[in-house]
Amino acid sequence: MSEVIPHWLTKQSSLSPDIPAIELENGEVITFFDLKQQSQSFAKKLANKGVKKGDHIGILSTNDVNMIILIHALSYLGAVGVLLNIRLTASELQFQMDDAEVSLLLYHEQLKEKGLSLQIKERYSFKELTAIEEKEIPLKQEIKLDDPFTIIYTSGTTGFPKGVIHTYGNHWWSAIGSALNLGLSKQDKWLAVLPFFHVGGLSIFLKSVIYGMPVYLVDKFEPNQVNMAIQHKGVTIVSVVTVMLKRLIESLGTEKYPKAFRGMLLGGGPAPESLLEKAKQKEIPVFQSYGMTETSSQIVTLSPYDALRKIGSSGKPLVPAQLKISQPQADGVGEIHVKGPMVTKAYYRNEEANTKAFDDGWLRTGDLGFIDEEGFLYVVDRRNDLIISGGENIYPTEIENVLSELPEINEVAIVGKPDSNWGEVPVAFIVKRENYLSEDRVIEFAKQRLAKYKVPKQVYFINELPRNASKKIVRSKLKQEF
Amino acid sequence: MSEVIPHWLTKQSSLSPDIPAIELENGEVITFFDLKQQSQSFAKKLANKGVKKGDHIGILSTNDVNMIILIHALSYLGAVGVLLNIRLTASELQFQMDDAEVSLLLYHEQLKEKGLSLQIKERYSFKELTAIEEKEIPLKQEIKLDDPFTIIYTSGTTGFPKGVIHTYGNHWWSAIGSALNLGLSKQDKWLAVLPFFHVGGLSIFLKSVIYGMPVYLVDKFEPNQVNMAIQHKGVTIVSVVTVMLKRLIESLGTEKYPKAFRGMLLGGGPAPESLLEKAKQKEIPVFQSYGMTETSSQIVTLSPYDALRKIGSSGKPLVPAQLKISQPQADGVGEIHVKGPMVTKAYYRNEEANTKAFDDGWLRTGDLGFIDEEGFLYVVDRRNDLIISGGENIYPTEIENVLSELPEINEVAIVGKPDSNWGEVPVAFIVKRENYLSEDRVIEFAKQRLAKYKVPKQVYFINELPRNASKKIVRSKLKQEF
Repeated sequence: MSEVIPHWLTKQSSLSPDIPAIELENGEVITFFDLKQQSQSFAKKLANKGVKKGDHIGILSTNDVNMIILIHALSYLGAVGVLLNIRLTASELQFQMDDAEVSLLLYHEQLKEKGLSLQIKERYSFKELTAIEEKEIPLKQEIKLDDPFTIIYTSGTTGFPKGVIHTYGNHWWSAIGSALNLGLSKQDKWLAVLPFFHVGGLSIFLKSVIYGMPVYLVDKFEPNQVNMAIQHKGVTIVSVVTVMLKRLIESLGTEKYPKAFRGMLLGGGPAPESLLEKAKQKEIPVFQSYGMTETSSQIVTLSPYDALRKIGSSGKPLVPAQLKISQPQADGVGEIHVKGPMVTKAYYRNEEANTKAFDDGWLRTGDLGFIDEEGFLYVVDRRNDLIISGGENIYPTEIENVLSELPEINEVAIVGKPDSNWGEVPVAFIVKRENYLSEDRVIEFAKQRLAKYKVPKQVYFINELPRNASKKIVRSKLKQEF
Repeated sequence: MSEVIPHWLTKQSSLSPDIPAIELENGEVITFFDLKQQSQSFAKKLANKGVKKGDHIGILSTNDVNMIILIHALSYLGAVGVLLNIRLTASELQFQMDDAEVSLLLYHEQLKEKGLSLQIKERYSFKELTAIEEKEIPLKQEIKLDDPFTIIYTSGTTGFPKGVIHTYGNHWWSAIGSALNLGLSKQDKWLAVLPFFHVGGLSIFLKSVIYGMPVYLVDKFEPNQVNMAIQHKGVTIVSVVTVMLKRLIESLGTEKYPKAFRGMLLGGGPAPESLLEKAKQKEIPVFQSYGMTETSSQIVTLSPYDALRKIGSSGKPLVPAQLKISQPQADGVGEIHVKGPMVTKAYYRNEEANTKAFDDGWLRTGDLGFIDEEGFLYVVDRRNDLIISGGENIYPTEIENVLSELPEINEVAIVGKPDSNWGEVPVAFIVKRENYLSEDRVIEFAKQRLAKYKVPKQVYFINELPRNASKKIVRSKLKQEF
């Protein structure tokens, strides 16, 4: 039976009206009462424009407090937020909005040009929304955990992004699974700097209203600013990706974090040993984790106590989660399958992807890995040769599809090249059709069609791509070039 | 959709095999790995005797570690535990076992006489169970939250106890609701001294396997022993009823608890102001709460910060819970209704009680109360003139029904009399039919048929019972006698 709980923001506003829900860098504080009021106000403005239960609303925004208020506003109407990655090009965004059947777009003023370039029936900037009058309607007082709340796109094997539907329950269980792992204290304050349109950033704000916990909102990653917040603003937990952790430690110099700092929640692949050693020297607890959009953020985590004993491991599945290796080979490696109430039940309108991904309640992640004798997961190969660059997922197929449209290219393969800053960056191996093709031309072509982080950072021209017996490209051979 | 999670004890055994699950007063420690092994062993022994999914197994035990192992054992088979109150008489127990369709009884050696006196097809003492061979069968690896786990009886308006069905989900959500209220720390250790056959005692052991938290098990309430455990054994939280808190503070003398002690979770009605003042002087945080068997323990709690500002209040509903006052009078007082995933969905085989109790997802508690302008609940009158004596619920109707069978009695009314030790004790107001009836005769008659705590502590002989216009006994008038 689908469980029903009171609306989580209304609840926190009732339990802790004066507790800060969001603290901004300029010192401004939004209490849970304020956040409820402002979210309900936005909900009534949207209602005036006809937004209702089940509508799909696109949100295109930088890390801004209004984005959070808007997402809560949608929950008061039962509408679904389609969170758009602002780094994508207009055509990439258009695909997602069409696929998700977005009926109305809300965009931040800073993204006006992009927002206006998209094909959509109805759109409002955040400022325009603010100017709309409220319509008095009954707002949701309860949350049905099986109802959909957000859709976030993730790329797939084919290169066509798939819309991951998150129910309220997925987010709730993710927050609870995290609390059972990290503990829960009235002193907690979580710093949010990851993009809010990714589930890892979004989840911080949902934990906030589920726990009744303040979030310290940083709109742009500046290591000094983040370190300052940890040292002087009472921040106890920060979600980061590897490149951020590295820069935070560098920027910290000879100083240390206060004793009250509880740790870094690290996403986007296991950290290199040298970084973990540095963190240990600095007495910074690092909780490595494994997760994906489909699991509503982390689903497997490694405690700081095990970090150096189990280098390269992602840890063990959270309390409500299960993990298994499907059809393991002799060395124990097989496809990683996960299960749990934080795992999405479906991609939006994508029967083919759903059939492929779900198996009797288990999600086939596409990642390869093994579980050691103590139950620790090791991810040995990311799904579909996934490249993770500064926390962003990049699917080679998607870039390959785009570059294949360039007539001068005969064949192309994209692989991740190790990078000291970003973990990995995409690079292209190209077999030319026309000899005059230059690296500049390739990169220029990609820039016009792909988000910046997906544009190959280097182009290698070669005579032929290495292929195996079944003619599949052997990317590992290409990686040997580095 | 019913959520599925990994078996919670197997999970903790995997996450924290060496962490103590249960610490005994004699220094013995049972780790989560041990607890899993022993529970699975008991499960296989029970399987050998044919116990299977859906079977109802009676458990009659003092506060003993084997009782906990047994309850977990049932969860590995999908069997349901019917937890029996050892203070009841044989006939009271027989009613519950028959009503719950118990097919097999397990009893502690200390209760051999009572265990053997009951009518049941099959029964084993804990020792006898230990001697049974294991049968290798597949044990449950997952928990479906909608499945029933325990049945605990509670008395109703009619005086006939009703079997409250708790699903795994009810217990899970109760534990999560409590964690969101009290916080969650790896340093926590909860002391269990409340009877395990009541949901308040049982819930501690379920929190243990859901949180991965050690429980310090005390089989009998001795204030010095409990204080010693708080002061020297790392206990951070204790569940108590008012009489216990009073005695703990008395016994503490001039000493104080360590800083790491997080507080007392107080059930069984709000505490008197004088006691709260004493607790405050001793710097003992007291979390008052309101709950009942049907809500799987606390559902409304008052934080220590509000305790003296809101004397007499039970607080606010937990994060996943809702509260409303049905048909409030001019003064705001009406029947308290509660809702949430920790609230039972049904009494066992009792359509009449179910129809009466449930209203569109809400439970009618039968208690009267009001909610103040800040959202705090005040309980002004307990359901059915409920008497709470040392944490045990006593329903006047049940005692009145029994005494009415005494031929020398014309009319009888039971009310709670304030008692400095127990909060309240039951006393009888009797209109004689035969003049020779003595107080001794009444008490002797009650002793043979009722659990000791239900036997009236005093008998008042009067000429007639005060009744209102609709001939209902006005118990408040009787209370004025005190």
